[in-house]
Amino acid sequence: MSHETLDAGEVQLPAEAIDAIERAATSAHRAAHPHEALFSERAANIKQSAVRDVFDISMRPGLVSLAGGSPYLQSLPLERLAATAASIIANEGLTALQYGGGQGTEELRTQICEVMAAEGILDALPRNVVITAGSQSAQDVATKVFCNPGDVVLVENPTYVGALNTFEAYQVEVATVEMDDDGLVPELLEARIAALQTAGKNIKFLYTIPNFNNPSGITLAGERRQRVVDICRKANILVLEDNPYGLLRYNGTPLEPLRAANPADVIYMGSFSKIFAPGLRIGWALVPEHLQRRYYLASESVTLCPPTLNQMLVSAYLSDYDWKGQIETYRGLYAERCTAMLAALDEHMPAGTSWTSPEGGFFVWVTLPAGVDTYPLLQKAIDAGVVFIPGAAFTPSDSPSNKLRLAFSAVPPDAIKEGVRRLAPVLREALGAL
Amino acid sequence: MSHETLDAGEVQLPAEAIDAIERAATSAHRAAHPHEALFSERAANIKQSAVRDVFDISMRPGLVSLAGGSPYLQSLPLERLAATAASIIANEGLTALQYGGGQGTEELRTQICEVMAAEGILDALPRNVVITAGSQSAQDVATKVFCNPGDVVLVENPTYVGALNTFEAYQVEVATVEMDDDGLVPELLEARIAALQTAGKNIKFLYTIPNFNNPSGITLAGERRQRVVDICRKANILVLEDNPYGLLRYNGTPLEPLRAANPADVIYMGSFSKIFAPGLRIGWALVPEHLQRRYYLASESVTLCPPTLNQMLVSAYLSDYDWKGQIETYRGLYAERCTAMLAALDEHMPAGTSWTSPEGGFFVWVTLPAGVDTYPLLQKAIDAGVVFIPGAAFTPSDSPSNKLRLAFSAVPPDAIKEGVRRLAPVLREALGAL
Repeated sequence: MSHETLDAGEVQLPAEAIDAIERAATSAHRAAHPHEALFSERAANIKQSAVRDVFDISMRPGLVSLAGGSPYLQSLPLERLAATAASIIANEGLTALQYGGGQGTEELRTQICEVMAAEGILDALPRNVVITAGSQSAQDVATKVFCNPGDVVLVENPTYVGALNTFEAYQVEVATVEMDDDGLVPELLEARIAALQTAGKNIKFLYTIPNFNNPSGITLAGERRQRVVDICRKANILVLEDNPYGLLRYNGTPLEPLRAANPADVIYMGSFSKIFAPGLRIGWALVPEHLQRRYYLASESVTLCPPTLNQMLVSAYLSDYDWKGQIETYRGLYAERCTAMLAALDEHMPAGTSWTSPEGGFFVWVTLPAGVDTYPLLQKAIDAGVVFIPGAAFTPSDSPSNKLRLAFSAVPPDAIKEGVRRLAPVLREALGAL
Repeated sequence: MSHETLDAGEVQLPAEAIDAIERAATSAHRAAHPHEALFSERAANIKQSAVRDVFDISMRPGLVSLAGGSPYLQSLPLERLAATAASIIANEGLTALQYGGGQGTEELRTQICEVMAAEGILDALPRNVVITAGSQSAQDVATKVFCNPGDVVLVENPTYVGALNTFEAYQVEVATVEMDDDGLVPELLEARIAALQTAGKNIKFLYTIPNFNNPSGITLAGERRQRVVDICRKANILVLEDNPYGLLRYNGTPLEPLRAANPADVIYMGSFSKIFAPGLRIGWALVPEHLQRRYYLASESVTLCPPTLNQMLVSAYLSDYDWKGQIETYRGLYAERCTAMLAALDEHMPAGTSWTSPEGGFFVWVTLPAGVDTYPLLQKAIDAGVVFIPGAAFTPSDSPSNKLRLAFSAVPPDAIKEGVRRLAPVLREALGAL
């Protein structure tokens, strides 16, 4: 993995994407194996769209990847973490390598309450925390526990591609609500709910990323937050608040989570993937007391228990390291990269394009004029030595989108500038063709 | 955790079990929160039966626990593993702590093919291996991909409690097939399939633990294996072969897995939990070529990717350690404990009881006379300083059972003998009351 490599000579052609498209087409025409009859109805919804195959390409070396939302781990104290992991295995290996409780360790659940206190949730109890295999698994469990086929989940437009994959795997109908620069528009949320409920739909929850939304970078304004929860409560709809980036606000203190003042109405999901290390796959859900037991048992039925060693490593990190100082480091680092990205966009983007200005997190969302489809531009961008994610990936429909996501989290400022410089002529050509 | 403690003075009363039962009863009568209407239909099936709460108790210190099927990790080279983990984080931390591919690392998938070769599967390809969060997650994914609500899964009677939890979470109808001392009886399997298909049921797969079945310790005889697959193939039913204990055969070479000669008909599940370390949560599925893509994408939709650090630690263990020698150590250790268990049963069990004689694995299955329900005996056993798992936990119905499971894997021989000595009067009293 060398996100920093700028050598365009090593550019990878999108063979995987082409391959994936061809495979999908071929399998549809191939004589069906009798086992095809065994697939569940939901299995038909478990697919990787051609657009989403981009994620595979983005892992390849030789490109400036503005695609993947990976944290920049180079600033972690790896030598010290190595010693900590060694100490855990040498001294507590019989616990670290053994089965643990399905809900996660009491120690880490207690510490997670302290992390959430830093995020503005002051009343969390360890018994209502369920540790999961990343917050992806927390989303999966929530969908499992609440959604029948045909039920509706509300999401921001655009929203996290992994959540869309999870919802679709449960045959959920995903309904979008538009955002403006201040995030989800309460009036539109209210109208959408009313229309869906009038149509007889069962809406189970609103899935929202209120801080530095993936992919748009947009933040739900503080003054809108209680109103969003109130609208959902009135309609008896849960809120699934996904807040992996909340502590990565560049300036000032984090905005209060929707969960903070609404303990009974919000399932809050957090993750160590962005503030520590995604390779450990440790996330969590803070679940309202009256929903906790079913949520926990469903989680246990999926993975039995979260990995013990990983939990103990996170616990040691939270107790023995300056984890808040590390977050300060990350905030400075990502702010610098965001600034570099915005400056490069200012310098290189053709007239007619616009983009968001995130207050934190990993992403900028670029809008091209109506009529441009960013998906066919991807191959041209790869040819030019840069990768982005086409906007269609972040909508339930996969229909053509004039948007694209640029991630700056894993890329040093110079490479960001170079990536945008490579991207600009591709966009300029597309605009010229309108 | 001190499975070895024999101090009966520290005995834990089954407060958790009582608490769980009371909670369940209370919540049923409590005024329903409006959110109760939001649960999915499957959520009603996601429950922890009172019987299964025993697993929580069995983790408590102060008892001779013949309950939990934990491997005996004391024989692992912890100091050396500590150094290996440290080296991975110090030298490859940017990979180990970062997101990885959804299917698992190519390196570990290749090595897993070598592990399966030791188990008798010689034609596995890394591209058909999907690494999962323990094999529990592999079961979850299989159920997700194949089972609609109301579909039927066939299981051995008795079978693994965790699999039952997973199947029930998908509203699957679990149908049992009886075993004799040679495992699943092919004629009964065939008859059961015919009856269910005549009744219009959709049977999706047979879930089987052919080696040293959990909980019974019974092994499917070699001469029956192809016949079981043939019966399923003829009925267009997949086989889900769960083989966590296969390499832990006390004498001789492992029996050939059902998958070995049947690459298109069997999803094979393996795990490092019993041959290395369950706390890492690394299992896998070997999936027939024509089912691989949907299986893999479903897995990705649940956990995004398996933990990278854990995969790299397993890879290092397989490449740099004498993992086959460690399995030899385990085989000797568990054989010795099994012998101690059988000798203690011979010495202490009252007339009218019988038990299995496993050829490998972790468990002995004790049968009491008809009319005895082993669940109410559990509290008495705890009072006497020993824990077992009542047989009802291992059936889909949770109905009264005259069986019980004794696990000897985590308990030294002397403690096994002491546990059985404590258990005997409890059973004798129950038999006397008939």
